[in-house]
Amino acid sequence: MTLPSHGANPLYLYETLGMETPDAVIDFSENSIPTGPPTRLKEQWARWYNAISSYPDPEGRGLKKLIANKHQVNEAQLLLGNGASELMMTALRKFQGKTVGVIHPAFSEYERVIKANGAFTHHIYSTELMGFQPDDHEIHAFLSEPDRALFICNPNNPTGIRLERETLLSWLVTAEKSGSTLLLDEAFIDMAGEQYSLADYTGSPSLLIFRSMTKMYSIAGLRLGYLLANEETVKEISQWLPHWNVNQLALLGGETVLQDQLYTDEVRSFISKERSYFTDALRDIGFKVSESAANYVCIQPPDAKQTEALWQFLLREGLVLRHTYNYKGLDGAWLRIGMKLPEQNQKLIKAVTSWAQ
Amino acid sequence: MTLPSHGANPLYLYETLGMETPDAVIDFSENSIPTGPPTRLKEQWARWYNAISSYPDPEGRGLKKLIANKHQVNEAQLLLGNGASELMMTALRKFQGKTVGVIHPAFSEYERVIKANGAFTHHIYSTELMGFQPDDHEIHAFLSEPDRALFICNPNNPTGIRLERETLLSWLVTAEKSGSTLLLDEAFIDMAGEQYSLADYTGSPSLLIFRSMTKMYSIAGLRLGYLLANEETVKEISQWLPHWNVNQLALLGGETVLQDQLYTDEVRSFISKERSYFTDALRDIGFKVSESAANYVCIQPPDAKQTEALWQFLLREGLVLRHTYNYKGLDGAWLRIGMKLPEQNQKLIKAVTSWAQ
Repeated sequence: MTLPSHGANPLYLYETLGMETPDAVIDFSENSIPTGPPTRLKEQWARWYNAISSYPDPEGRGLKKLIANKHQVNEAQLLLGNGASELMMTALRKFQGKTVGVIHPAFSEYERVIKANGAFTHHIYSTELMGFQPDDHEIHAFLSEPDRALFICNPNNPTGIRLERETLLSWLVTAEKSGSTLLLDEAFIDMAGEQYSLADYTGSPSLLIFRSMTKMYSIAGLRLGYLLANEETVKEISQWLPHWNVNQLALLGGETVLQDQLYTDEVRSFISKERSYFTDALRDIGFKVSESAANYVCIQPPDAKQTEALWQFLLREGLVLRHTYNYKGLDGAWLRIGMKLPEQNQKLIKAVTSWAQ
Repeated sequence: MTLPSHGANPLYLYETLGMETPDAVIDFSENSIPTGPPTRLKEQWARWYNAISSYPDPEGRGLKKLIANKHQVNEAQLLLGNGASELMMTALRKFQGKTVGVIHPAFSEYERVIKANGAFTHHIYSTELMGFQPDDHEIHAFLSEPDRALFICNPNNPTGIRLERETLLSWLVTAEKSGSTLLLDEAFIDMAGEQYSLADYTGSPSLLIFRSMTKMYSIAGLRLGYLLANEETVKEISQWLPHWNVNQLALLGGETVLQDQLYTDEVRSFISKERSYFTDALRDIGFKVSESAANYVCIQPPDAKQTEALWQFLLREGLVLRHTYNYKGLDGAWLRIGMKLPEQNQKLIKAVTSWAQ
């Protein structure tokens, strides 16, 4: 049996498991913000119908201007993508035949895009004992070889663990010296705060930053991400992107949500509250909970052998958590929970508590 | 001065030319159907707002089922794309280091995706004297070498000239013998009629068919295309596609428009009428008009040296035609016109007629 290798789309999961889909399903396996997009997007929606018949601006100039301004980079250091996943698949073309490191546990797409692009994966492990932080010496040693690349997810998906800027900057220095590259996935950095981003180092020839707009702004269905890199890298990667790669609604949606100045603060405050609620409630009943800076946490019941039983129990209740069988280093012993609405989160905690007793 | 290499997005054109944009612009440079999408799409639009927050089904199973049924292929012979352009860029990875033919005049993306993928372009010309039909012997000779690929656009963009099925099938036989591949772009075939498609030959290891849903259904802003090929090819190409490559609205939109059985007939009838109107009116005043089977025609004034003057005159009137400077073999001496609404088409004919006098 091959379980779906991603969160979201829970119907696949029930089908694969041969389990009847309950009437009401809450999908905690998806990491988007549950409160929905900024309200101004809904206000515009009816008007946007007329935009679907025209080709999108292939340069996405309106949106590029706003993003460039947000990060104080110039537009030539920026590439828009049909989700960050398109940019990863495309950027990895640069590394055909090279060695690319992955720090486990890690988003499963890293290994997929490395393989698809004819590069070779070097596995680095950060274990629970290490607080899910990779060994600093191991990273420096890897990056000090020439022509390597290293995927880094900050905060990590699935654990939510955040790396310190000083740590990342020391890795960047090593990479710059050897001519290696950091592939920094900041898909969830806005959940922690922009002050933790390395966007202000855009321009370094050793730094590619992947950003997603679909999680924070709850627009996963529209697909929207971007890459921050130096001009030469942006130019090289853009030749491999299809024309009109970002659809009209992603462009319009992106422009609209970025104009809301208060939204991200509100979301971070909401996340922080719900994450504390989860963490406290589950630690109270003896669970391990990862020290997450994002809008999800990894949890493990007091007896790690019971993780699958808990997962299955919750599935039958219509509460879909993300299994971790395809996360090397977690190997199914943990479950990832994306935060949903308060009453949904309470429902989950109640179910977990009743299972634990 | 580098003119935009595509139709649509006319504001770029005015900007590049340093020309003031008129208050009212009609964009004949875009080839989408001007009557807008099937009405049932508009009826659903408000409901789809809620779909933007969830990840799209990465397999697009609902839409795949409808398309597979339409062409009587199995779903494993079908790949959905973020526009046909994504599928071209991605499929060409198969031909890295190989020789790929382009029949001019041709859609400019062919050369771009060949180059981006490290393949080599072999140029084949179909001239006006040849009725813009390529030389049959030349095509057979090209395809009889092993491991080659050939882009064929049927009907052709920009001329609208349609190739006979018998011609295409004889090329397919040659390609199958040598192990070469036809890259058949049928982006506008539904404007001519499904009976001219080679979709019923899906399964041949020498045939890749690129289809677009954005022209016929007027959803260029959503981005949606698909590839028909044998299972092995589909599997190989799919490894290079990013996860969730087709956005939620393209999936929903695609499913909705395919359920309208009458729409394509209505569109073909509309096109046929407007194309006759254009052709007759312009031939009456001494213009050359290509024998198009699609929703656009190429035109040339009685004195071909006056083409640019006509183009500029019309631009100043807010009537944007597609220049052909970057179409090898047309080299600016023709203009492409995509059919718009009857009153818009009349306006254009009136302007051209007044210029000609």
